[in-house]
Amino acid sequence: MSSTVDLNADLGEGFGIWRLGDDDALLQVVTSANVACGFHAGDPSTMRRVCAGAAAAGVAVGAQVSYRDLTGFGRRFIDVEPAELAADVLYQLAALDGIARAEGGRVRYVKPHGALYNATVAHEAQARAVVAAVVAHDPSLPVLGLPGSALLRAAEAAGLRPVPEGFADRGYTPDGGLVPRGEPGALVHDPAEVAARALRMAVEGTVLAVDGSTVRADVASICVHGDTPGAVDLARAVRTALRQAGVIPAPFTS
Amino acid sequence: MSSTVDLNADLGEGFGIWRLGDDDALLQVVTSANVACGFHAGDPSTMRRVCAGAAAAGVAVGAQVSYRDLTGFGRRFIDVEPAELAADVLYQLAALDGIARAEGGRVRYVKPHGALYNATVAHEAQARAVVAAVVAHDPSLPVLGLPGSALLRAAEAAGLRPVPEGFADRGYTPDGGLVPRGEPGALVHDPAEVAARALRMAVEGTVLAVDGSTVRADVASICVHGDTPGAVDLARAVRTALRQAGVIPAPFTS
Amino acid sequence: MSSTVDLNADLGEGFGIWRLGDDDALLQVVTSANVACGFHAGDPSTMRRVCAGAAAAGVAVGAQVSYRDLTGFGRRFIDVEPAELAADVLYQLAALDGIARAEGGRVRYVKPHGALYNATVAHEAQARAVVAAVVAHDPSLPVLGLPGSALLRAAEAAGLRPVPEGFADRGYTPDGGLVPRGEPGALVHDPAEVAARALRMAVEGTVLAVDGSTVRADVASICVHGDTPGAVDLARAVRTALRQAGVIPAPFTS
Amino acid sequence: MSSTVDLNADLGEGFGIWRLGDDDALLQVVTSANVACGFHAGDPSTMRRVCAGAAAAGVAVGAQVSYRDLTGFGRRFIDVEPAELAADVLYQLAALDGIARAEGGRVRYVKPHGALYNATVAHEAQARAVVAAVVAHDPSLPVLGLPGSALLRAAEAAGLRPVPEGFADRGYTPDGGLVPRGEPGALVHDPAEVAARALRMAVEGTVLAVDGSTVRADVASICVHGDTPGAVDLARAVRTALRQAGVIPAPFTS
Repeated sequence: MSSTVDLNADLGEGFGIWRLGDDDALLQVVTSANVACGFHAGDPSTMRRVCAGAAAAGVAVGAQVSYRDLTGFGRRFIDVEPAELAADVLYQLAALDGIARAEGGRVRYVKPHGALYNATVAHEAQARAVVAAVVAHDPSLPVLGLPGSALLRAAEAAGLRPVPEGFADRGYTPDGGLVPRGEPGALVHDPAEVAARALRMAVEGTVLAVDGSTVRADVASICVHGDTPGAVDLARAVRTALRQAGVIPAPFTS
Repeated sequence: MSSTVDLNADLGEGFGIWRLGDDDALLQVVTSANVACGFHAGDPSTMRRVCAGAAAAGVAVGAQVSYRDLTGFGRRFIDVEPAELAADVLYQLAALDGIARAEGGRVRYVKPHGALYNATVAHEAQARAVVAAVVAHDPSLPVLGLPGSALLRAAEAAGLRPVPEGFADRGYTPDGGLVPRGEPGALVHDPAEVAARALRMAVEGTVLAVDGSTVRADVASICVHGDTPGAVDLARAVRTALRQAGVIPAPFTS
Repeated sequence: MSSTVDLNADLGEGFGIWRLGDDDALLQVVTSANVACGFHAGDPSTMRRVCAGAAAAGVAVGAQVSYRDLTGFGRRFIDVEPAELAADVLYQLAALDGIARAEGGRVRYVKPHGALYNATVAHEAQARAVVAAVVAHDPSLPVLGLPGSALLRAAEAAGLRPVPEGFADRGYTPDGGLVPRGEPGALVHDPAEVAARALRMAVEGTVLAVDGSTVRADVASICVHGDTPGAVDLARAVRTALRQAGVIPAPFTS
Repeated sequence: MSSTVDLNADLGEGFGIWRLGDDDALLQVVTSANVACGFHAGDPSTMRRVCAGAAAAGVAVGAQVSYRDLTGFGRRFIDVEPAELAADVLYQLAALDGIARAEGGRVRYVKPHGALYNATVAHEAQARAVVAAVVAHDPSLPVLGLPGSALLRAAEAAGLRPVPEGFADRGYTPDGGLVPRGEPGALVHDPAEVAARALRMAVEGTVLAVDGSTVRADVASICVHGDTPGAVDLARAVRTALRQAGVIPAPFTS
């Protein structure tokens, strides 16, 4: 019996002269690239380079849409009106899609970035605004997000495919949520343990919570981080562990 | 015998709270709208509103691509590398096209804005960069520009349709160029004279130069301005004069 | 017996080619100008022009500091870290102060703009961040804000002079708060009534609440709006009514 | 007999999450820090951190003013109107000065960045605009630039102190200019040779040109680069060589 799992990471998060993370290395590890679209990072030249690399590596391109906040890297909640947010997301999505197509690919899914990702876990109006933008651009595009989030509920309600993702390096609460950053157990640092958790998610669809209980983690994609050299090594460890266990990394969109 | 001519103007040149020109009024006058794409003006919400209005009014949408320069409204030459310029133009073009499609239309042509328009009259590398972006996005899109410009030559060389435009309210030199702003005769202010010049361009394909000679002005579109209330009235005068002479305003793309 | 009152309004809220409000007209009406510092509006050339005009008209210049949000005109709450907010406010304050000094004046007070103004009514950490920036730049600068706000409390606690302001065109609740926009009675439109309310604030220190009760409004400044032609007329009506009643408009900083 | 020389480098050239160069390491090497002011790099929090570090290390802070061009890192010529450029420079200079003062220091000199540095070698109007901004802010501030540049001539004509700088890692033409990047001999890579050239500049006021001739290099400061790890090592080599030869690194402003 064989199985597959998607590995996604954030790419193209530099801007102009500035770089963040090792895009080339990540393209050899992940199967889906959440590409920054210019609002929190990602100038057009960077977007183009990453889309070309993704096309060459057979990595699926996702639109990593964000609040308009270069200075804060999209990590600050902005109380933007839903209609404006929808227009902002549509703009980013269309721009990246055009660039990806010019490089021989296309956008295959959408995943909000940073504070927008966190906000749309519970902020119904902003979640619906993101979904409305996806519907307006291409209703065949899946939306990647946290299981149980307002975003995935809104996606499903709108007829989009909701794609739940898991985090192998984050601690889980007994009810299946993430342990908030800053609290004990929020982060898992040991590469072997991270790899084991990823494997368990991929094969069994479960994860060990901080209290030792087993909780469901039916995820179609596992998010790995890449904005530090160590993170790339961690991502490689996850990929290797999966392959050794016979789990083949493949885009969830294929 | 009947004939048609295109009237184009810049629309959607506000940003956020700020407005410039009367988009709604212009949509009743022009047949082609050069819509700002976010780099010199035009936030996504404004772009969306203008594209919806253009679709409703049967006005063709063009991508008014620009240097990245909100502060200078794209009116300052920037010595950007051609590869970066091409990526910037592709980004803007794809973003507007996506928004136009979400509103029931699509981008029908490309016209550079401000300093980029002026630069690509003679700057071969930047002209080729703009053209390369259009080719990368959609080689069926015409490029609107000054007759004899490097931009139109590059467009033609790349297999794009070059569309020459005229300016009814600008003075012409005996060799068919525009009298530089600031020099005597650069601007024509009298509405009746502007309308007469537009009509002559549309019907005879000629324009009276500042020295009284008649020069060729084989233009497929006439640019009218709309960033002041008086300019809208002028545009209306041109449209009325054309119609009264039996020249039907219609998009050059139709 | 004579008395004075300050009239403040937002000025310099254009950006680049875009204008908002009639700065020149307002400089003849108000005694204190809240000048935009570049983060929600106000490019350096605009700032310089307004500061020169204020110096010529004898109008006090205040720093209208904001979240960094040109697209949203500073009207959207941003959950920025207090340390970053303090640095942002210090940057804006210092920039405007330098420009005002180059034009023969200097910054005389600080007033947050838009969403930052609203947030610091209750958001203690952001209120303290704004105050910390003022202390770092010049602890002799007063802070203008809503009576009872976290901002004015933080200013007082830090040894700054808190300056409460009133709004002659806004409805008040029986407990002295503002009726939220969108609710009945939130806005007073009749110029005569607005002028009468301003006069009552200036002379008696009271305002009529929406339920007909009289509430305290001990304000050292009255805010008038200027972003529409009608608003400038309203401001003029307030100024005229005050002068006719013997209340002399004068900067609170003098 | 002892002598001193100033070593200057660009610092604070990150933006938001992005970093460029090792500011902390450079603060232990240089005596003058050209601090980015927010237009090509340098958000307010970064500016504050670098100014605090410079104050602690006894390093003089200079305002590294730039065209407004975050995307291009200020490396692209922009044909900005002189009056607007002057306002832009004044804004940056005042903002950094305020931040430096809040951290216990102050701006001690001005040095244009990137394309503005290159443009003001010959562009008289832009050179005068930069100088006018310095005069408007503080006429006691020196201006750092290329010997013989329009910038230093304009500074001198305006009564400012012009401070010529040399480049130990750049090739010189027989007439004392820099060999353009991309041409043979433009860059000197060998640390020992760079150190020797710096020493010769500091002690003899000369430099060996690419044709082997000796040319004058009366410089009050030597520019070292710091935007790569290797560059920091090179800067350290220069500093060490100078000290071993008895040349004491000290700010030119002291």
